[in-house]
Amino acid sequence: MAQDSIQLDSQGRLKHFLTTEHLPRSLLTAILDNAERFTVVGDRAVKKVPLLRGKTVVNLFFEPSTRTRTTFELAAKRLSADVMNLNIEASAAKKGESLADTLRTLEAMQTDMFVVRHHESGAPEFIARQVGPEVSVINAGDGRHAHPTQAMLDMFTIRRYKRDFTQLKVAIVGDVAHSRVARSEIHALKTLGVPEIRVVGPKTLLPRGIEALGVDVHHSLETGLAGVDVVMMLRLQQERMQSALLPSGHEYFHTFGLTPARLKRAKPDAIVMHPGPINRGVEIDSAVADGKQSVILQQVTHGIAVRMAVMSMAMGTAAQAS
Amino acid sequence: MAQDSIQLDSQGRLKHFLTTEHLPRSLLTAILDNAERFTVVGDRAVKKVPLLRGKTVVNLFFEPSTRTRTTFELAAKRLSADVMNLNIEASAAKKGESLADTLRTLEAMQTDMFVVRHHESGAPEFIARQVGPEVSVINAGDGRHAHPTQAMLDMFTIRRYKRDFTQLKVAIVGDVAHSRVARSEIHALKTLGVPEIRVVGPKTLLPRGIEALGVDVHHSLETGLAGVDVVMMLRLQQERMQSALLPSGHEYFHTFGLTPARLKRAKPDAIVMHPGPINRGVEIDSAVADGKQSVILQQVTHGIAVRMAVMSMAMGTAAQAS
Amino acid sequence: MAQDSIQLDSQGRLKHFLTTEHLPRSLLTAILDNAERFTVVGDRAVKKVPLLRGKTVVNLFFEPSTRTRTTFELAAKRLSADVMNLNIEASAAKKGESLADTLRTLEAMQTDMFVVRHHESGAPEFIARQVGPEVSVINAGDGRHAHPTQAMLDMFTIRRYKRDFTQLKVAIVGDVAHSRVARSEIHALKTLGVPEIRVVGPKTLLPRGIEALGVDVHHSLETGLAGVDVVMMLRLQQERMQSALLPSGHEYFHTFGLTPARLKRAKPDAIVMHPGPINRGVEIDSAVADGKQSVILQQVTHGIAVRMAVMSMAMGTAAQAS
Repeated sequence: MAQDSIQLDSQGRLKHFLTTEHLPRSLLTAILDNAERFTVVGDRAVKKVPLLRGKTVVNLFFEPSTRTRTTFELAAKRLSADVMNLNIEASAAKKGESLADTLRTLEAMQTDMFVVRHHESGAPEFIARQVGPEVSVINAGDGRHAHPTQAMLDMFTIRRYKRDFTQLKVAIVGDVAHSRVARSEIHALKTLGVPEIRVVGPKTLLPRGIEALGVDVHHSLETGLAGVDVVMMLRLQQERMQSALLPSGHEYFHTFGLTPARLKRAKPDAIVMHPGPINRGVEIDSAVADGKQSVILQQVTHGIAVRMAVMSMAMGTAAQAS
Repeated sequence: MAQDSIQLDSQGRLKHFLTTEHLPRSLLTAILDNAERFTVVGDRAVKKVPLLRGKTVVNLFFEPSTRTRTTFELAAKRLSADVMNLNIEASAAKKGESLADTLRTLEAMQTDMFVVRHHESGAPEFIARQVGPEVSVINAGDGRHAHPTQAMLDMFTIRRYKRDFTQLKVAIVGDVAHSRVARSEIHALKTLGVPEIRVVGPKTLLPRGIEALGVDVHHSLETGLAGVDVVMMLRLQQERMQSALLPSGHEYFHTFGLTPARLKRAKPDAIVMHPGPINRGVEIDSAVADGKQSVILQQVTHGIAVRMAVMSMAMGTAAQAS
Repeated sequence: MAQDSIQLDSQGRLKHFLTTEHLPRSLLTAILDNAERFTVVGDRAVKKVPLLRGKTVVNLFFEPSTRTRTTFELAAKRLSADVMNLNIEASAAKKGESLADTLRTLEAMQTDMFVVRHHESGAPEFIARQVGPEVSVINAGDGRHAHPTQAMLDMFTIRRYKRDFTQLKVAIVGDVAHSRVARSEIHALKTLGVPEIRVVGPKTLLPRGIEALGVDVHHSLETGLAGVDVVMMLRLQQERMQSALLPSGHEYFHTFGLTPARLKRAKPDAIVMHPGPINRGVEIDSAVADGKQSVILQQVTHGIAVRMAVMSMAMGTAAQAS
């Protein structure tokens, strides 16, 4: 996949946001810088800017996710866009319309942006290749492939607390094998210059050959967290816990749950992140999730600003460089 | 529950609206006076005021109710707020997230108001105690406990037709035992100075010891309605009719249904109210529901204005005193 | 049904839009002319005009249809209206409220327009007769009766490509018997002066006595399409294909599917229309649906402009004559 060519227009400006892979550092930095400007909007009495006024944003969700849809809907409304929520499983699919026809129909309504969530990896790119030049596609999570806005809100949070990416040791902990979040995080961390990225988890939950991405593999929290600046926890999906891959949530916590004692292996000022929703007592102890090193709720706040940044850049109404 | 302290801020201004209990008469009167000003908005060509522009109102419904949600959504939109509808049963709960985590996440999105409907009594107060100082909570009905905006639109309707609360005889008729509406009405009527409040219904549908609230108990419509100025009917829930408490809807109507003949026991200018939706031929005869003493549809209209008043007061954009 | 009297007010202005039947040519032309003005809105950076600002449009859908609801919601939002989506099956009906009471309640909320979709023919007219003078009703499809906004977007598309209705030969092809679209198209084509209208389909799918509407009946595509300027395809409902009326989708395509070869019977510059969603390989070949004579996607674009025209005329904010 040569996604660089499809994500950027001929002037190198963000057109679609499908993955953090193959994008230049300057563009990721521009997203973070724009998001920085949007954080102040959330603190104002009137939390609205007119950058997307008269634009129509369509939330195209082929897989239900109230939480993610809500963050995109909020970001779009704070940019003054009109938002349409379409649950595709429940509508056109029933009438036997093909995905391509659904997309062309939505385009013919002169909509401006599709925010796509899909259970199949590659679906947002497929859609981006189908649509005309007027429409931007934002990936809101596809299969095990990518979740780029989540990764960028994580980068934003890291920069807020740690400033310089080039001095950091970062650990990504948990079910890396099934995680689109982990993939997007690794690409973004690499591009932004993080010198040491570790993935930490049991063998059954780490993909074989992941070292090829330039990460270090650890099978114990003790070594994996030693001396890191940032701990990025992953959510353990319920369906994994019920599968043969793992004995139980309880047993997982026993070995890989982040407890205050284990967190002590990291630097004293290390921050703890999680994309939510958290499974308390499974991948993370409540004392850590609610503790002073946790920045989990700040991530949520940053998520709105980062999505506003990506949406306005893709619509050409925010700066493309810093 | 010392709800006075949580409903008002340190300056005595409305912060959360959870129950009509323990609130001073001046504050209830301020709600009615603000609502009076908002009634004109509904008559304008442009039914919108900018009081909540740039605010995010979240309808947090743990129990489905299209009708109630619609009134709050309309009120919020006429105040120019952005509205997010979340059906909690259908979303985060499925992923196993705790209520507390859901609330913190919504707060982290810098939302301003939660309109909460919940099947459990006390849930909105629980939520109000969890949220930070930036968020207001409005109770849209919790278990058998309270439905304060319904009670206030009833008070507004009574004042419109009867002016002086201190001269009135009011009868509340029906399933008082299971009614959050009845509880909120009784507290509001008491606070506003109504000298005679009667509850009327079969023994199985009146809670034991209700006299302690300062109301008179009647087990027949004949005595219960004699000489009253206001008849407040309650809705008979379908599930009650199917339970052992009551023989059938038909039989209930035979004894407690409000017919034109029975209404004659009330004053000739008595008004008839009902929170809707009405069960025609169960608790009320169509001739009464559609008759000239009925103010049931006016209640709906007033409901929008009263909810606009409560929402703008809680957001600090409307007067707190008259 | 004397729907002319209910669709127009005493000054002959559009009040409700229930059917294309019985409306004067001047009014249909005014809809097309207004839509012409609205097409430019979709091309602007800010796709919004303030004509319905502060109005409340209620999408009252008694039959689910994401596609149709989306077009009305978009049209309303581009007119700056507030939109409420109500799925009636899923709400009040559950609580046993009558349709009449639901309507009165919505009216009491001072809403301005009901966009009604219903599985029963005549339901929107029934509703228009119930509501007070403040509310307009737009038919978004009722049973087999009418789908007037679809018909008018078809007329708009024909006028765009063919200019003069009085010189045209038009063929309507497919399941005419069960099609509300076909009925509304025939009435509109007649009123706008089309001299030759043909209905083309197997006997089982053409209603008996349809000649009384002034159309020519053809049972083969070969004769039906000969020399026509416009081919209006109808969607073949899945449920028809499974019934005794038709052997199978495949067999239908064999006889009545529109292929490039059959389209050659029409004039070389004939346009091909379809209300969507299309069944590729059933009523239409992909080579035709995606071919250069197809204007199917243009229809979708025109649909937004036509609905904006109808809504603003019914609200009295657009010209009623050309």
